[in-house]
Formats: sequence, structure tokens, C-alpha cells
Amino acid sequence: MALNPALRDKIIAAVDKGFDAQVKFTQDMVRHVSTRGNEHTMQDFMFRAMKTRGYKMERFEMDRAALGHHPGAGAWDDLHSTAPIVVGTHYPREEKGRSLIMQGHVDVVPEGPLDMWATPPYDPVIQGDWMQGRGAGDMKAGCASNIFALDALKSLGLQPAATVYLQSVVEEESTGDGALMTHLRGYKADAVVVSEPSHETITRANIGVVWFQVEVRGVPVHVQRMGTGANAIDGAYRIIGELRKLEAKWNATKDQHEHFKNIEKPVNLNIGKIAGGDWASSVPAWCKVDFRISLLPGKTAEAAKKEITDCVAAFAHQDPFLSNIPPTVTFNGFQAEGYELKPGSDAEATLAAAHEAVFGQKPKPEISLAYLDSRVYALFDNVPTLNYGCISRGVHGFDEGVNLPSLKKTTTALALFIAEWCGVEEIKA
Amino acid sequence: MALNPALRDKIIAAVDKGFDAQVKFTQDMVRHVSTRGNEHTMQDFMFRAMKTRGYKMERFEMDRAALGHHPGAGAWDDLHSTAPIVVGTHYPREEKGRSLIMQGHVDVVPEGPLDMWATPPYDPVIQGDWMQGRGAGDMKAGCASNIFALDALKSLGLQPAATVYLQSVVEEESTGDGALMTHLRGYKADAVVVSEPSHETITRANIGVVWFQVEVRGVPVHVQRMGTGANAIDGAYRIIGELRKLEAKWNATKDQHEHFKNIEKPVNLNIGKIAGGDWASSVPAWCKVDFRISLLPGKTAEAAKKEITDCVAAFAHQDPFLSNIPPTVTFNGFQAEGYELKPGSDAEATLAAAHEAVFGQKPKPEISLAYLDSRVYALFDNVPTLNYGCISRGVHGFDEGVNLPSLKKTTTALALFIAEWCGVEEIKA
Repeated sequence: MALNPALRDKIIAAVDKGFDAQVKFTQDMVRHVSTRGNEHTMQDFMFRAMKTRGYKMERFEMDRAALGHHPGAGAWDDLHSTAPIVVGTHYPREEKGRSLIMQGHVDVVPEGPLDMWATPPYDPVIQGDWMQGRGAGDMKAGCASNIFALDALKSLGLQPAATVYLQSVVEEESTGDGALMTHLRGYKADAVVVSEPSHETITRANIGVVWFQVEVRGVPVHVQRMGTGANAIDGAYRIIGELRKLEAKWNATKDQHEHFKNIEKPVNLNIGKIAGGDWASSVPAWCKVDFRISLLPGKTAEAAKKEITDCVAAFAHQDPFLSNIPPTVTFNGFQAEGYELKPGSDAEATLAAAHEAVFGQKPKPEISLAYLDSRVYALFDNVPTLNYGCISRGVHGFDEGVNLPSLKKTTTALALFIAEWCGVEEIKA
Repeated sequence: MALNPALRDKIIAAVDKGFDAQVKFTQDMVRHVSTRGNEHTMQDFMFRAMKTRGYKMERFEMDRAALGHHPGAGAWDDLHSTAPIVVGTHYPREEKGRSLIMQGHVDVVPEGPLDMWATPPYDPVIQGDWMQGRGAGDMKAGCASNIFALDALKSLGLQPAATVYLQSVVEEESTGDGALMTHLRGYKADAVVVSEPSHETITRANIGVVWFQVEVRGVPVHVQRMGTGANAIDGAYRIIGELRKLEAKWNATKDQHEHFKNIEKPVNLNIGKIAGGDWASSVPAWCKVDFRISLLPGKTAEAAKKEITDCVAAFAHQDPFLSNIPPTVTFNGFQAEGYELKPGSDAEATLAAAHEAVFGQKPKPEISLAYLDSRVYALFDNVPTLNYGCISRGVHGFDEGVNLPSLKKTTTALALFIAEWCGVEEIKA
């Protein structure tokens, strides 16, 4: 890393100096209950935060028709967010360095039962090294770190010597359409950082994700024969069992995947949600189950969807109850493929060096088994996309939190990376 | 049956003459969407129908405190109906005969998915011999038949020579608290008719019913290990499996029950409703299942509840996931014991004779595997309680219907029964 040690030390000090404000900003973000479809005020907050800092602002709707024509888009249904996408652009006085996209998503997954939280999920309590709250880790801390890494440079009278796009998106937890929309809108850069809480690693590869809902319908037998399985809830559980066999089949191909072959169970089927029946004393005639399954890289979402549909249909065909009214399979979210960050890029080397300057050692490349928006930039723009961020806990669970010392360090690494990747120039000529 | 043949024939003709009006009245009843808690206008309709006919009216609230002290009451929760109970009383000029309660419930179970109905569930379409609609069979046709059996006598210038209470209740599909409230209110008679669609039989015995909800909570493992069953939806299904063993255990005692030993599976566990999880990509941390289980007569609800609670607790104790946070069992509806109509009562003989006068043969006594409000009068007033009515189909299912020729016949039998049981007197002295 060519960054001179004096500048490096100044940047480290600047991030440290701004960190209290960064924590407060992150807390303000967590207070927004920005679950799917409810991100409007959160995005307005992000818009104002960027505009106040002088970025050139654009705020735009997701284009349903354009997304509908893209193979990487999710399924658009009534639950799809219509919150705007917010992008703040920094233009340098002179375009000398390499351009950069810094991205984060502000949507959060539901908090679940309140009584399973030690503290209220949208109250960003700080206890020791941790700030707790839904979205604190995934990924409001990352969104804030993108802004505050640039703030640190500004506090030194410096700014990136290349165009930097700050992208605040939604729909990361359900379709990935927010990130895809920035791509469709035409945003391009020489590298991308998505500051997900990667536990201080750079993500080497990740899985794809498909969401689907299976709905079982059936004219049930009398309550007297309910125990024989001729009802929709039992039918749904039998389909769950069959889909677990498909999951095992997909896992059995892991040896073909360099990055995944050493992971015990890279492909995971999640039975996320179930609802069925109307009345304790009526035999249930319907049951809906929401699934999420992951795909190893190389398997297209289309191919995965076909296997899922065929699996359910074939099983139902031979099941006495399910064959009466074949279950329906609806793809109602992600239809996303996995990606790989090809080793050897200058972007990765630059971030690794920045990380080393803070942590004293190179970051380990890691494999992710969760959906990542990075796939949009990696697959469709084919640019080095660095999924990198701090330590978190309880993501998608309870007592979610972000580790603040880790956050300060990864923010520092990001600031150093920006300075090196884009170069810096004085704000005033 | 001592009824003279001339009067018998006049009553048969009178029911026939009034049947079009009875069908129209039943249709008007079906048009009321009187699902649990929504029976207010339906009860107002019943109130007006009785008041117009000159009955002495009483309309009263269910007394939650009084019910709470009675062992036959259900559990009162937020879903409990607060619709009033309606009773119309006929007083004779001279109390010569035996008194009678004629009861019916106006609450109906949910209609379920609309697309599983051939016609809209609250549109009482008549096709051939059938009137279709939610509640047409269970048991609005029966409620109407109570009123129109008396109307037939009145059209002949006659009325019962004893007190007759027309009771219109709610909560029959969930707790039985409506019927129990009439008991607590102090209504008593020498016999009771509940005109459920018993398929032209007199119910000899029926099972008891307990409702309960099991809620599984648990801090789930990461999505990577979801497939191992460490999540609330899988945990709930394991409990379902364990409760099926309890069901089998209870069925194994059937040989001790004269009326039930020849029934293949008298005790039935219904898994009526399920809901769990919040998000396709989060491992589910909660799942609620609503059950209905039946009890053979003689088993108290208290004993059944203890067995259920113990069964769930013992299973959870040895289950690696469920033992983390033991599941809760909530009794949220029926806590009702079964009853037997002791053979040999004069009331049964009188109804059997009335039935024979219409059908040409004696009615078969039958065993019911469903909850019946009759248990209130049989268990707590210890009076002959005749569960008797017409043929229906699709009760608690789809395309529910009532068979109109059967309804006319059982209404006629009821009118003949009233005339014989209560005796008749001229309306005008």
C-alpha cells in the first residue's frame, strides 16, 4: 500500500474522532422500523444525511417493468417495497483515481416475538462493546460506515479523487431488486464495496437464493380420519420432508465447487413460515409454507425453480391426498444466483492492505452462505465487488448487535481503502 | 303415541303448508355471517322472529364470572363471543303438559378458502333437494325448525299446553358457553330438544371435547443447521406426533365404553390450525398449533387437560431443542365432557313415535363424535335431552348443505312430538 504513513495515521485518527457521531448516526438508523415496505422514512433520513454533506442526490423508484425483464430480479408481489432508492454522488474536482460504489441496504427482517429480545428491538441500546437492535448488524452499521469513512477524509480537508456513489437500497432481504435497480439505472464504477457485517473478512464467494411458497389445498376427510394425514397441514409437512431430500441432493454436488466443498452443508433449505387452517374443530383444507433455499454458484435460478417445481409435483402425484388437488409452487422473492470474487484483483489487494494497516494482518477470504447484494455488481457489471464489514451477532435472530470496536476498525479500513483506491485531493483547490 | 290420527294428519299438512316460509326463513338466517363473535345481528333477527310470534322475550349477556366457576365452561379469551343469548318463552293458558326446551345455536365455523366453495358460502342457493351455505346444516335449519314446528300448531289454532322455551345460543362451535349460560340463567324443563342435523337419528351418546393450543418458542440455530430440526416449526411437528400417540392411547380404552367400542376410532385429535415464523429467510423461533381432541364419556376435562399438559412437557423435556424453552399449552375453548342419553325415557319414546309417524320406522339411536350442546342439559340438569334433526352435508367443510325433504320430515316429527309431549290447547279459550 502506497499510502504514506502520515496520511494513514491522520485517517486513523480522523475515524476515531468521528466515531461517537458515527455511533449516534447508527443509533438513529436503528430507531427506524424499516421492515420490508416500511423503509420510506429511513430512506428520507439517508437522503438528508447525504444531501447535508453536499453529495449530488438522486432518488428514484424501482422500475417494475425493467426489473421484470432482468433474469436476476426477484418476484414482485403485493409485499414488494416501493420505497425509493437513494444515491449520493461525490464528484472530484479532477477525475484522477478509480471510481467506487459504496452500497448498503436499509431494510431489515422482522423482529419476531418481542419477548425473545432482552431489550426492545428498535431501541439501540449500547452495552459494553455492543450496540443491540434489529438491523444494527444487518446492516445499518455498514450503511453508516460508508458515509463516515468519507466524513473522516473530509475532516482532513480531503476528498476522493474519483467519482464515488453512495447507494442506499431496499429489498436486500427479499428480492435484491434494490441493488439490481441501481444497476439498471446505469450506475457503474471500477469497484464496489458492500459493507455487510462480514466479520472482518472479504467474501470470496456466496450462494444464490430462491424463495418459494408451497400452498397445499385439499378437500379434507372427516375429522375421524384426520390422523391418517388426509389434511393440508400434514400434506405440507410431507412436502417439507421431500424438499429436504432435494436439499440433500444439491448438497451432494458440493465437491464440484472449490469454495464450498469443505463446508459441511453449504446448501440450506429454510422453512421460514407456515400458516394453515381456520378453526380448531375443522379439518384444515389449506396450508402455506414459505421456503428459502440456497444454490451453489453456477446453478441458475431458472434451473433451481424447475427442480423445485418438479420435485413437488412428482411427490404430490403419488400422494393419495396431495394428488387430489396438486399443490402450487409460487416463487415470491429472491431468484438470485451465487457469485465468486475472482482472486487477484487490484481492488481486493488494496482493501486487504488497508485492512492490514488497521488489524496488523491480512483479512481472510470467506465463503458466505447468505444472499448478498454484491452478486448484482459481480454478475452483471463484472467488476470487483468487495463484501466487507465488521463483526455482528444475532442477525435474523434475537438480540442482534454490532460490535463497536470492530466497526471502528473496519470503518478505518474502508477510509484507507477509499484514499488508496480513488486517491485523494484537497477539497479546496 | 296417543295423538289422534286426525290431528296428526292436520299437523303434517300444516308443516307442509308452512314449509316454503320455513325455507325462506332458513335462507335469511344463512345470509347472516354469524361466525364466532359476529352473531349480534343474527341474534337480533332471532329475537324479532320470536317476539313477532308473541313469545315472552328475554335477552341476556353471558356472565363471564358465573361461567368461570362452572366446571363445564370453556376458556374465555379475546375471541369469545359477547353476543347475547335470546330466549322466547311460550306460556300455556293452563299448565297441563310437560315443559320443553327447544334449542339451537346460530354461530357457524369459518367458511375457509372461498375458492373451495361451488357457490358463495353465505348465499343460500337451492339446488334440487339441497340448500347450500355455511351454517345451513349446522344448524340454522334446525333453529328454524324449532320455530316452524310451533308455527304449524299455531296455524291450526293450537299451542302447547305447557311452557316451551325457544333458546337461541352462540359459542356452540368453540366453548359451549351459550348453552351453559341458559342453564346458569335458570331455565329448566322436563325435556330438551336440540335440533342438530343428526341425520334423522336420536343421539345416544357423544364424546367430550377439549381445545388447546401448543406454542413452541426457541432460540433457533443458524440457518445452516435448520435442517436438523432445531427450529420451532419442526419442533411443533414433533409435538403433533407425540400427541397422536396420546390419541392412540385414549382410543385403546374404547372397549370400556359400550357405545364406542364398535367405532373404529372414537377419539380424534384434529390439528386445526398452524402458524409459525415471520420471514422466509429467518429460522422460525415460534410456532402455534391449535388442536381439538375428543374424550370418551367419563373422562373429565380436567383429567384430559392434565394428560395433555404432561404429555407435551415430558416429550419436550427429552427433546434437545424443545427443552431449551419448554412449549406452553393453553386451553382456549371447549372443556366439555361427553354424555349419554339413558335409554328408556318417555321423552325418547315420544320422539321416536313422532318420528315413526312421519318416516314409517323408528329412528336409530346413534353415537356422535362431535361436541353437542345437549351435554349441558344432560349432564347438569339431568333431563332427557334429544339431539335430533335432519340430514346435512359438508358440515365444517365446503359446500355445506341441508337436505330439504329431510328437513320437512324432521320438522313434522318435532311438531308431532311437541303436541304429544306438551299436549295442546286451543289458542283462544
